[in-house]
Amino acid sequence: MNRLTLALDVMGGDIGPRITIPASLSALEADPMLSLVLFGDSQQISPLLENAPSSLLERIQIHHCTKTIDNNQGISHALRHSKGSSMRLAIEMVQKGEAQGCVSAGNTGALMGLSKVLLQPLEGIQRPALVSLLPSMTGDKTVMLDLGANVECSAQNLYEFAIMGSIFAENRLNLVYPRIALLNIGVEEIKGNQSIREAANLLEKSTALNYTGFIEGNLLLNGVADVIVSDGFSGNIALKTLEGAAKNLLSLLKGKEKQPIFKSFAKFILRFFFKDAYHRLKRINPDEYNGASLLGLTAVVVKSHGSANVDAFARAIADAALQARLQIPQKILAGLQRY
Amino acid sequence: MNRLTLALDVMGGDIGPRITIPASLSALEADPMLSLVLFGDSQQISPLLENAPSSLLERIQIHHCTKTIDNNQGISHALRHSKGSSMRLAIEMVQKGEAQGCVSAGNTGALMGLSKVLLQPLEGIQRPALVSLLPSMTGDKTVMLDLGANVECSAQNLYEFAIMGSIFAENRLNLVYPRIALLNIGVEEIKGNQSIREAANLLEKSTALNYTGFIEGNLLLNGVADVIVSDGFSGNIALKTLEGAAKNLLSLLKGKEKQPIFKSFAKFILRFFFKDAYHRLKRINPDEYNGASLLGLTAVVVKSHGSANVDAFARAIADAALQARLQIPQKILAGLQRY
Repeated sequence: MNRLTLALDVMGGDIGPRITIPASLSALEADPMLSLVLFGDSQQISPLLENAPSSLLERIQIHHCTKTIDNNQGISHALRHSKGSSMRLAIEMVQKGEAQGCVSAGNTGALMGLSKVLLQPLEGIQRPALVSLLPSMTGDKTVMLDLGANVECSAQNLYEFAIMGSIFAENRLNLVYPRIALLNIGVEEIKGNQSIREAANLLEKSTALNYTGFIEGNLLLNGVADVIVSDGFSGNIALKTLEGAAKNLLSLLKGKEKQPIFKSFAKFILRFFFKDAYHRLKRINPDEYNGASLLGLTAVVVKSHGSANVDAFARAIADAALQARLQIPQKILAGLQRY
Repeated sequence: MNRLTLALDVMGGDIGPRITIPASLSALEADPMLSLVLFGDSQQISPLLENAPSSLLERIQIHHCTKTIDNNQGISHALRHSKGSSMRLAIEMVQKGEAQGCVSAGNTGALMGLSKVLLQPLEGIQRPALVSLLPSMTGDKTVMLDLGANVECSAQNLYEFAIMGSIFAENRLNLVYPRIALLNIGVEEIKGNQSIREAANLLEKSTALNYTGFIEGNLLLNGVADVIVSDGFSGNIALKTLEGAAKNLLSLLKGKEKQPIFKSFAKFILRFFFKDAYHRLKRINPDEYNGASLLGLTAVVVKSHGSANVDAFARAIADAALQARLQIPQKILAGLQRY
């Protein structure tokens, strides 16, 4: 592992520093070659670092700023008023080449917009996309994009998502010729809207890409594709629907309310025997697992879930470090020549 | 209960008469005031009725036809070549007023197209929608539409879906002033595409409708709304994603593969203690539960899932009978005056 510096917007997310700071310490502990620059209010940050060992503190730099971008702000308003905010400053550090990637749990639209303006999309990519890894019933992982960056997508956008997703899967999951599928409302050729059908045509023509056809929502977790491509609207709805189903189920199994001892015993038995399934379910749950990335930019930008807990935000930091070390943006740029 | 005749396309679905005929007998047994006209190949139908009691047979009429509409046919091709097919003949019987509703597990696009042409949308409805009832964690049911009839929807389309869904919820679920939500990728006003934001504006202005705002995919099962409105593309993807999650989970619990006795025991314990949750999950599973309806037409049309089993198809028949008796189409027409 090589030395690496990441820029963190520690003010983003539903809770802010009380989650992001302990997560930063945990990430530093797990990765001795990692340094972090924390952008945010030092009055909130410093008390949370008081008891940290000096071996971690020496790899932390605090960049004090009080301005933050609100979650409810429209993108254009957020961009106009972003100067000096923790999110923008973190991205600017990456822009200057002083950090190799950036992590934020803040406003997704603003993070996307600022990253596009400051870090620029890679040449050949019209629209960056939000990507994440889904767990599957088979134990493998599936790359899914776009998860909400682009509400409406042309056939060309979807085609570029497929290319980026394929390169991401090759490098991040170590796969050869990953199987690509388009999310649709049926598997027959005639299904879906025009963008999807045209994207299918483009993908079928490409021999460099392993396009396997349409996939419906019911097979997202079944490991039948390595890369699932969709527009950001449907992709976000599918992901959140999965998250909700997993969360509801876990709440049945964990339920903190008072309950008869037999039911508690049953839950214990269940978790014991279905440990694998249970852990896989947890990974769909955004509070437990984390890290969607903006793909198609010149540098690594990871968006943590707004409701991420400490472990989840730490995992987002580790994911950003891994992607920076794997040089995902550079691999995508090089890969674009092949298609 | 009053006397009722339904027209069935018994050739539709992945399996056809071997599912639809036993399901018809089961529906007739459960509803003594129901009569069925079966449209399909009598050579396939008759042997399946051989052992049926005469009390049921006297309420069955077979209308022999050998032509069927394929699942893979494009809508326009299917419509042009639909004359004399089991699906079209069943709808035509409703058109003539000789049956009060129709059930098919066949090609959704063709069923939609033929129903629109033959049965006509209600005055004031631009586009009929596919509607279904979702189970919820609270034990209540939620009306969701559109589930796949309309790939792209204008604000006006979504607004009309909300009206139809609200009237459907009032009558089918016995609710007063049902809570309506729009499926979106965030709950802030600025989220989503233009159609959704405009639909939200229309709904906010209407005092006759109880519009509560946007809902994200993760809360579909949580009973926070009585009517969930979306375009047919995202709605279909959300529904199938839920179905897939439920089915995967059930497969973990049911798993027919050989397994250690302790694991079987754990499954037994689980099903025993989580019976309610288990049964609720089963209802999201299309093989176990069934019946999406085309809402906004002058008569009742129920679309059964293509992979429905006998119980599920029987439930689709019972659902069509209930809607016809509740006079849902007439209630929607009358309700449209209020908005």
